Amino acid sequence: MVRAIITNAPNGGVKIENVNINEPEHYEVKLRPVYTGLCGTDRGEVLGNLSFAYNEPGYNYLVLGHEAICQVIEASENPYKIKPGDYVVPVVRRPGKCVNCRIGREDDCSDGDKHEAGITGLHGFMRDYFYDEAKNLVKINDKNMVKVAVLTEPTKNVMKAFEVFDTVSKRSIFQGDDSTNLTKNCLIIGTGSEAFLYAFMAREYRFNVFMTNRHPVGEEKLSIISRINADFYDYTREDPLKGIDLLIDTSGDPGTIFRFVRKMNYNGVVILFGTNGRAPATSIDGEDIDYIIERNISLVGSVDGAKRHYLRAVEYLEKWNYSEGSVINRLITGVFEPEDVSIFTKKPENEIKSVIKWS
Amino acid sequence: MVRAIITNAPNGGVKIENVNINEPEHYEVKLRPVYTGLCGTDRGEVLGNLSFAYNEPGYNYLVLGHEAICQVIEASENPYKIKPGDYVVPVVRRPGKCVNCRIGREDDCSDGDKHEAGITGLHGFMRDYFYDEAKNLVKINDKNMVKVAVLTEPTKNVMKAFEVFDTVSKRSIFQGDDSTNLTKNCLIIGTGSEAFLYAFMAREYRFNVFMTNRHPVGEEKLSIISRINADFYDYTREDPLKGIDLLIDTSGDPGTIFRFVRKMNYNGVVILFGTNGRAPATSIDGEDIDYIIERNISLVGSVDGAKRHYLRAVEYLEKWNYSEGSVINRLITGVFEPEDVSIFTKKPENEIKSVIKWS
Amino acid sequence: MVRAIITNAPNGGVKIENVNINEPEHYEVKLRPVYTGLCGTDRGEVLGNLSFAYNEPGYNYLVLGHEAICQVIEASENPYKIKPGDYVVPVVRRPGKCVNCRIGREDDCSDGDKHEAGITGLHGFMRDYFYDEAKNLVKINDKNMVKVAVLTEPTKNVMKAFEVFDTVSKRSIFQGDDSTNLTKNCLIIGTGSEAFLYAFMAREYRFNVFMTNRHPVGEEKLSIISRINADFYDYTREDPLKGIDLLIDTSGDPGTIFRFVRKMNYNGVVILFGTNGRAPATSIDGEDIDYIIERNISLVGSVDGAKRHYLRAVEYLEKWNYSEGSVINRLITGVFEPEDVSIFTKKPENEIKSVIKWS
Amino acid sequence: MVRAIITNAPNGGVKIENVNINEPEHYEVKLRPVYTGLCGTDRGEVLGNLSFAYNEPGYNYLVLGHEAICQVIEASENPYKIKPGDYVVPVVRRPGKCVNCRIGREDDCSDGDKHEAGITGLHGFMRDYFYDEAKNLVKINDKNMVKVAVLTEPTKNVMKAFEVFDTVSKRSIFQGDDSTNLTKNCLIIGTGSEAFLYAFMAREYRFNVFMTNRHPVGEEKLSIISRINADFYDYTREDPLKGIDLLIDTSGDPGTIFRFVRKMNYNGVVILFGTNGRAPATSIDGEDIDYIIERNISLVGSVDGAKRHYLRAVEYLEKWNYSEGSVINRLITGVFEPEDVSIFTKKPENEIKSVIKWS
Ligand SMILES: [Zn+2]
Ligand SMILES: [Zn+2]
Ligand SMILES: [Zn+2]
Ligand SMILES: [Zn+2]
Repeated sequence: MVRAIITNAPNGGVKIENVNINEPEHYEVKLRPVYTGLCGTDRGEVLGNLSFAYNEPGYNYLVLGHEAICQVIEASENPYKIKPGDYVVPVVRRPGKCVNCRIGREDDCSDGDKHEAGITGLHGFMRDYFYDEAKNLVKINDKNMVKVAVLTEPTKNVMKAFEVFDTVSKRSIFQGDDSTNLTKNCLIIGTGSEAFLYAFMAREYRFNVFMTNRHPVGEEKLSIISRINADFYDYTREDPLKGIDLLIDTSGDPGTIFRFVRKMNYNGVVILFGTNGRAPATSIDGEDIDYIIERNISLVGSVDGAKRHYLRAVEYLEKWNYSEGSVINRLITGVFEPEDVSIFTKKPENEIKSVIKWS
Repeated sequence: MVRAIITNAPNGGVKIENVNINEPEHYEVKLRPVYTGLCGTDRGEVLGNLSFAYNEPGYNYLVLGHEAICQVIEASENPYKIKPGDYVVPVVRRPGKCVNCRIGREDDCSDGDKHEAGITGLHGFMRDYFYDEAKNLVKINDKNMVKVAVLTEPTKNVMKAFEVFDTVSKRSIFQGDDSTNLTKNCLIIGTGSEAFLYAFMAREYRFNVFMTNRHPVGEEKLSIISRINADFYDYTREDPLKGIDLLIDTSGDPGTIFRFVRKMNYNGVVILFGTNGRAPATSIDGEDIDYIIERNISLVGSVDGAKRHYLRAVEYLEKWNYSEGSVINRLITGVFEPEDVSIFTKKPENEIKSVIKWS
Repeated sequence: MVRAIITNAPNGGVKIENVNINEPEHYEVKLRPVYTGLCGTDRGEVLGNLSFAYNEPGYNYLVLGHEAICQVIEASENPYKIKPGDYVVPVVRRPGKCVNCRIGREDDCSDGDKHEAGITGLHGFMRDYFYDEAKNLVKINDKNMVKVAVLTEPTKNVMKAFEVFDTVSKRSIFQGDDSTNLTKNCLIIGTGSEAFLYAFMAREYRFNVFMTNRHPVGEEKLSIISRINADFYDYTREDPLKGIDLLIDTSGDPGTIFRFVRKMNYNGVVILFGTNGRAPATSIDGEDIDYIIERNISLVGSVDGAKRHYLRAVEYLEKWNYSEGSVINRLITGVFEPEDVSIFTKKPENEIKSVIKWS
Repeated sequence: MVRAIITNAPNGGVKIENVNINEPEHYEVKLRPVYTGLCGTDRGEVLGNLSFAYNEPGYNYLVLGHEAICQVIEASENPYKIKPGDYVVPVVRRPGKCVNCRIGREDDCSDGDKHEAGITGLHGFMRDYFYDEAKNLVKINDKNMVKVAVLTEPTKNVMKAFEVFDTVSKRSIFQGDDSTNLTKNCLIIGTGSEAFLYAFMAREYRFNVFMTNRHPVGEEKLSIISRINADFYDYTREDPLKGIDLLIDTSGDPGTIFRFVRKMNYNGVVILFGTNGRAPATSIDGEDIDYIIERNISLVGSVDGAKRHYLRAVEYLEKWNYSEGSVINRLITGVFEPEDVSIFTKKPENEIKSVIKWS
């Protein structure tokens, strides 16, 4: 019996209770979560809004949780040198059989036949302990970053998206004639946790970073934006932006996305990342298509990330934890007990990222 | 005085008359057109529909024409070894000062400060003779292809678009596990001359090629489609397509584009090429954005092409002229006299590509 | 019993005789060779010079032959639409389990655990009939090129090498400021069949093409070089080359390679392709290393090619067969009977490529 | 008059004296060095060993120094927002007119027609003050890293080299089937300051990092190697390395380089970085060439770095200064006065990096 936070996918609901999960016949590592994070996907499952979610076969429930930092309890010898006591982040997606899955790029799965822990047919990480293979674990070498490492999973999405940007932007010379992005503008739509993580990384790419949102933003968020030298842009007022070179959307709202697509500079890249299946429709016409063509603009969807992106996430979270730990830690706005399952249905006020501490 | 087909940009109109154009002080090559081709852009200018078109500074008219195959009349020595008697295709775009223009990639101009012969501030090629620099000329070595070479300019757009595809599709493993596109589907929207040129090239990439159109297509076009082993797909009927890996739009119609975006396979690429500023609007919603993201789909605008793409165009037109000259030549549906300026205002029936022969 | 040309790898020897080869339990296609080609590898095996060659497990001989164009005798239904009567080229390498093999890139095998028909543990194509899977067959659609298609296998190596060039040369701007290779020099070391195929392709890339060799070259080869607008460069005389941008070696001779590495231009690329395990040593010193570094030069080994490169090979051989069939066919300098096994031990005079016709 | 450390290039010699350098007519920024670093190039110039070095035109001396961290004394308004009081690193190379120089990539200069401050025709940074354009300055935002920022210039070479690796390694799947380098080996030849900076970065790429050297290495270096979780490999003893995936040479010694080229794994990449014009010759034979080809190995020279690489260098030095400042600072083994010009001719014992502090 193991204590776990479960739902019944795709119908929804949430409770914490002791459940019977079969121990795997073969496993390399036994793990206990230290922190698990919560995101819109978890809440979507609990609300029964994610029709694609489903229980692990053989169970009439699904353990929630795909963002975690865990400690290794047991480990057999393995090529990744994962040992008892190590802190690790487990990857979410598990491969199918397509060409991308075969090379460790299940984030680019060609046929959709992959699984995601805590979402599609595979129990998640919100339980007192679980088992895994060493290959699926990303080691955290720096013990100072154990708490901030709960952000590894969302940050890996950012790293994948920037890898896509790197590839796509090579279709022409994107940077200025000093070979850098110093004179280029990046606008990020949204001010949730993913938006902030994108802002942190856009700054490392040396863009002039702007964040925007339909809604007014509270003091705390404005303070963080200011601390990372980004600008908040209230688009209901006069427009200060000369033109956008990289647009990153975390809202999933077509109206907002295309509002800004019409302000892209030549050779601009638009990263579509945020999803909101129930966002209202917007209208695009022949002039929008024309604008995209004449300026050689690229719009690219980007989902998930591979193990390499988890490693990159750790690399940068470690840096940010040192150089501006007081800022990056402010993204974690609440630490809850596993029993506080109400946070799945009621978003804490001023939440950026809520996490659960497993003692 | 030189005989030229002129308009008054952006107001429109068309006439052929003798005009006075200053001979350049320095030039390397004097040219006489052999064939010039006509496309929607020329007609748009004549109808006064292209607000961005403008006359060459110092003139109250603009010589039309950006698709041409010419013969060299005079040439001074030059590093490109262009000599009198050579057949050449002049490139359309002329560089500004941005980073892309500086390296011969004015097709990817970063600031819009380039010029296009016959369209924006630079006299075009529809005149008895004109002058140019050798660097702007693409030599046609194979004299058997002089006529078909009038298709070089539109074909270079295809080559650029496929180069963009090559770059963007590297964001994941696009090809099947045999390393080829043999099991991949390419759908081309439209059945105009550009659409056919895309189909020729998609076939070289070994896609299963499909063409589609809102309108019924005549016998001649169906016959060409069949001859190049493509399939015509009537989307008002039941849908035979399992999924699209590469979607190429030559229509500029948002409704048609997004109809098929919703059928893209994972890692699919959408090339936006055709423009139609007055195409009606369509509606896209949160689920459309979600679809693009979850499948890692890329939508990329692609305009024009660089000199390297003209060379590639010549390379393949030469091949197609040999291997299936009877098909590729059928794309040229009418040869007219310079005096037949009515073809600018009245599209000949069953036109794919109309060209003017300059004796 | 099937008539086959066999050796005893790695010891060598060659004979044609009727042998018993087990029919595979499951196969999709039965094939009969039409032409098979001969190269240095076959002769190396026969002479016992290739220590890495070995017999197919369970046999005390190895059927020779890895260059073939075959006709399909029987075929079950398959996704590649290979049908009886089709002409096809079988691929040589068969995948192991590494990441590259898993995605159809056994040419880039990461662990050496692949097989090569006619060379390493897998019977080759020099027999009256054999069996294969459809996935391993490359269809020849153009019946006019059946004979020239025997060059597909060597040409696929060229296509892979140019793909490597495409990737590696992206480390900086390689092309001139007109975006092309028109002012760039490609030097090819060697004048064997592979060297000529490289020259054909370098010309398509629009390089100024030069070929060179330690030995004087006969009239026939000089005539072919001239016909493809390349220049033969006798490096025992004064040096006409200003600098080399792309150097392709087919000799495997270190002394010749480094003689020309020292003449590379900035950002130059050296393709190492030809192997000659017994080539004499040469000396390279600190200044050679310095030269490579200061000029950002890349030296890249390239072996074999994937199915995609076979398709590209067919694409270009088809073109060359049409546009200059009289030249490309001159590369096939002799057509022999299967019984003429003496050609494995005695190279016919003035050979470029010898082939065997299987009636 | 300004106090400066000068040589007479290419003859050599070194002295510190007050010299007259014309103030530029137009400049954006006036700078005073805080620290300047010393490397083998400076010593080579002083010893008269670098035949390519030359004085700035109009002067019979050359101010030395290309590694510097400076403070801004005066600044006019500029698009890079460089202001008085800012700490900045000036870039070394200044562009010529080639295609690479035109886009800010003078590190990849196509014709050699660039200049290097303190080396080729341009006064260096070892003087009490100098002038520059804002575009050539890389801002250091984090005041905690002023001292370690003197390593920016050597570190930018590392960043360029890894960018080259990123590009070249895309010719096949380089990473393991978990999409990372965790099971890949990187061997760095040399134990000087550049070698250590490569080791720091190879670790961020998650290679298993090994360093090696012809000579025994002192306690201090062994301790640093251990602290960064690398292994020192004494190649005069039995060989512990299974195979090398990335080989980085900082020695310029052909014998050592090819000793390890023969141990490269399939698809391995060799970065040639270190130069030593007087290194003794080594012998390479046909089997070496064969080895490179059969394994698809790439050997690439890499010199200098662009402004983008300076920014990347700052990004990582900032991280390392925080996460292991005690280690990265140990690379700076001596801080000297400008008057201590003897360090140009006599290498301090156990030197990794010597720097000069300009008060
Ligand atoms: Zn998959
Ligand atoms: Zn431009
Ligand atoms: Zn393999
Ligand atoms: Zn340059």
